[in-house]
Amino acid sequence: MREAMREAEIAGSYGEVPIGAVVVREGEIIARGHNMREMWKDPTAHAELIAIREAARVTGGWRLTGCQLYVTLEPCPMCAGTVLLSRVDEVIIGAMDPKGGAVGSKVNFVETDDWNHRPTVIRGVLAEECSLMLKDFFRKLRRK
Amino acid sequence: MREAMREAEIAGSYGEVPIGAVVVREGEIIARGHNMREMWKDPTAHAELIAIREAARVTGGWRLTGCQLYVTLEPCPMCAGTVLLSRVDEVIIGAMDPKGGAVGSKVNFVETDDWNHRPTVIRGVLAEECSLMLKDFFRKLRRK
Repeated sequence: MREAMREAEIAGSYGEVPIGAVVVREGEIIARGHNMREMWKDPTAHAELIAIREAARVTGGWRLTGCQLYVTLEPCPMCAGTVLLSRVDEVIIGAMDPKGGAVGSKVNFVETDDWNHRPTVIRGVLAEECSLMLKDFFRKLRRK
Repeated sequence: MREAMREAEIAGSYGEVPIGAVVVREGEIIARGHNMREMWKDPTAHAELIAIREAARVTGGWRLTGCQLYVTLEPCPMCAGTVLLSRVDEVIIGAMDPKGGAVGSKVNFVETDDWNHRPTVIRGVLAEECSLMLKDFFRKLRRK
């Protein structure tokens, strides 16, 4: 999660909302991503989606079985759907997102038996630190 | 929808599941996409996501207000989430997908008041023809 937080910091340094993600396989980081929505002007440029696409490139296939996704903020509906499609084994979440979270906060798209894949979810890893990064970012933004 | 079906045909010609999408603004097609999951080895390379990313590039911003998305098959959870994030006004669907559809079949991620954007949904446009393309594709695949 520390590495996902480093990615979040990179996003923040560009003026993007500081959210970061990494994909891990057999204990090694194989892909990284940070939010680039404004810079890329791309509604799909969320940290998780970028990291998952990169991981698929690295592994040479779209199925990320055996992989874990670490992300500093609870995934949105799109990213929750991407988690299902990519078949990652596990999602490890930092802070929860009461307003937009689709992995337990507002809705739960991942922990259901609706689909033929159900990843394990772990919540609250370095949650306070992940949350503080976001709070600091928005506080500074409001001051401007 | 005919243009989305042309995109689906292109996907089919590569051996991809034939699903296509276009984004329309003020009566003109501004972006197109077809499923490229296997060729790109990318779990996110669905027709809708590719078309929406392209539309954001064309319009120069991630908000696709004033746009319609035409897609030959009911969107999956990821693409339904992308529809929400991109703020398209309207989603026009060909065939429904009872096994994987997230816009009314298995679940409905789009027509809810859970999020701060709720696009209009129109279903069943050239549904039989869209469905037939998929059935033909899978019939041929099984024969191989």
